[in-house]
Amino acid sequence: MSGTVYLVGAGPGAPDLLTLRAARLLERAEIVFHDALVQPETLALASRAAKIAVGKRCGRHATAQRFINKSLVDAARKHATVVRLKGGDPLLFGRAQEEIAALRAAGVSFEIVPGISAAFAASAELDTSLTERGVSRSVAFVTPRIGDGQRANDWAASVLAADTAALYMAAGQAEAIAAALIARGLDAATPVVVVHDASLPSRRERAMRLAELGQLELRGSAPALILLGRVYEARVQRAERARCSRCASARAAGA
Amino acid sequence: MSGTVYLVGAGPGAPDLLTLRAARLLERAEIVFHDALVQPETLALASRAAKIAVGKRCGRHATAQRFINKSLVDAARKHATVVRLKGGDPLLFGRAQEEIAALRAAGVSFEIVPGISAAFAASAELDTSLTERGVSRSVAFVTPRIGDGQRANDWAASVLAADTAALYMAAGQAEAIAAALIARGLDAATPVVVVHDASLPSRRERAMRLAELGQLELRGSAPALILLGRVYEARVQRAERARCSRCASARAAGA
Repeated sequence: MSGTVYLVGAGPGAPDLLTLRAARLLERAEIVFHDALVQPETLALASRAAKIAVGKRCGRHATAQRFINKSLVDAARKHATVVRLKGGDPLLFGRAQEEIAALRAAGVSFEIVPGISAAFAASAELDTSLTERGVSRSVAFVTPRIGDGQRANDWAASVLAADTAALYMAAGQAEAIAAALIARGLDAATPVVVVHDASLPSRRERAMRLAELGQLELRGSAPALILLGRVYEARVQRAERARCSRCASARAAGA
Repeated sequence: MSGTVYLVGAGPGAPDLLTLRAARLLERAEIVFHDALVQPETLALASRAAKIAVGKRCGRHATAQRFINKSLVDAARKHATVVRLKGGDPLLFGRAQEEIAALRAAGVSFEIVPGISAAFAASAELDTSLTERGVSRSVAFVTPRIGDGQRANDWAASVLAADTAALYMAAGQAEAIAAALIARGLDAATPVVVVHDASLPSRRERAMRLAELGQLELRGSAPALILLGRVYEARVQRAERARCSRCASARAAGA
C-alpha cells in the first residue's frame, strides 16, 4: 500500500472558504492530521476519516515536527488518501517545507492544495483592497520576530519597503512591533488594522495609528493579524470619528 | 428592487480551486460580470446567470472601469444576486477598490469573497513554500512598472527587502525587470521561476537565474508570474542539472 499525502490549506476558518478541491479531498480522506486552529465544521467534512490533532504551539517545535513527519509517512503506508490540513495556505507561514522534505525523502507521493490565507479573508471583511491604483502596488507578508539579533531587521525592512503589509503571528508583540517600525523611520501615524479570527463569527478588528498599536494589549492566545499601510487610512479615520463622537456624547451626558 | 453585488475571487483558473462560497454564489447568481481570463468551466457553474465579459486589457482603463462600475450598479437595481467575478483574489491586483467606491457611492450593498491568488497555486505546483524556516520569513507581492519615473523604484525596493517575491503581470517585461533588480544590487544568480497559467492544463514553468531572465522572451499575451528568491534554489539547480545532462547527451550523440 502506498497512498498519497495531500497538504491542504483549510483557509482562514469559515468552512465555506475552503476550496472545492479541498472539500472533495476531505470527503475522501481516510485519515486527517490537522492543526489545532482548524474549525470543527471544516473537520466535519471528513466524515469517514480518523482525525488527529497535531497542532503545535510555540516551543517544542522540532519534536512536534518530527512526530508529524513520521506520522504522515506511516499513514501513507496504510491509507490511500491522507490529508494534512493546515490553517490558511500551507505554503505561507505553514512550515510545509519540512513536511515536503520528509515525504520526498521517504518516497511518499504528495500533492499540495492551496488555501485562502488570513490576510485575504480579513481584507474582504474590511472591504479594503491590499493594492490600490496610485496608493499601493506592493504587499509584504511577514512574521515579525522580535529580539532575534541580526535577523530582527529583516521583517521590518520588508514592511518599510512595501506599500501595504500583513504581519502574521503578531499576537502579544504589538508594542515591540510598533517600537521597531517607528525606530526604523515608519511614520507613527501610519494606519493599522488589527484583526482576530478573520472570517469567523468571533471576528474582531480595531483600526488605529501605528503609535497607538504600541499601547494596545493583544491577547497572546489567538494568532493576530496586523494590517498596515495607506490603504487603511479611510478605515482608521472612520474609527477615529466614531471614538470622537462617543467622547462627545459622554461629555454631553456628563454636562 | 435592490440586490447585492458580490465581488468574487475566481481563483487561479482551475475550477475546483474556487471556494465553496464562491461556487454557491455562482449557482445562485442572476447575472455575472467576469474578467476575460476566467475559465469557461468556472463560468459554467453560473448555470442560471447571464454572463457578461468585461475584462479589460492594458490601456483604455478609465473608460472600461466606468462602464463596469455603472453596469454593477444598474444590475443591482434589477437582480437580487449580482456577481463580479475576478481572476485570483479580488483584493490583490484586482482593482477592486474602484468598484467598491462606486458601489458605496450608489448605496448598493456588496460583499467580497476572497480567492486563491496565482502565486499560491503556482507554489503548490512547484512543491515549494513561499516561506521556509531559516530561509524566508517575508514575501513581497508586487506589480513591476518599468519606466515609471519616480515610482519605478518602489516595486524593486519591495523585492529587494523581501526573502521571496512574486511579481504579477510581468509578461513581456522580463529583460527590464532583471536589469532593474541587478542594477539595484540583487545577486544575478538569484533563483527565479517563471510560471504561466498556474493550475491549468496549459501550465508552463521555467527555472533559471536572474541574469538569464534578462535573456528570456516572455510572450506578451498571458499575465506571467515571476517567483524569485532563495527558496527556489533547489528547483533551479534541478533545472540546471537537467539542461546540463541534455547538453552532455547531445555532445555524446555528436561525438
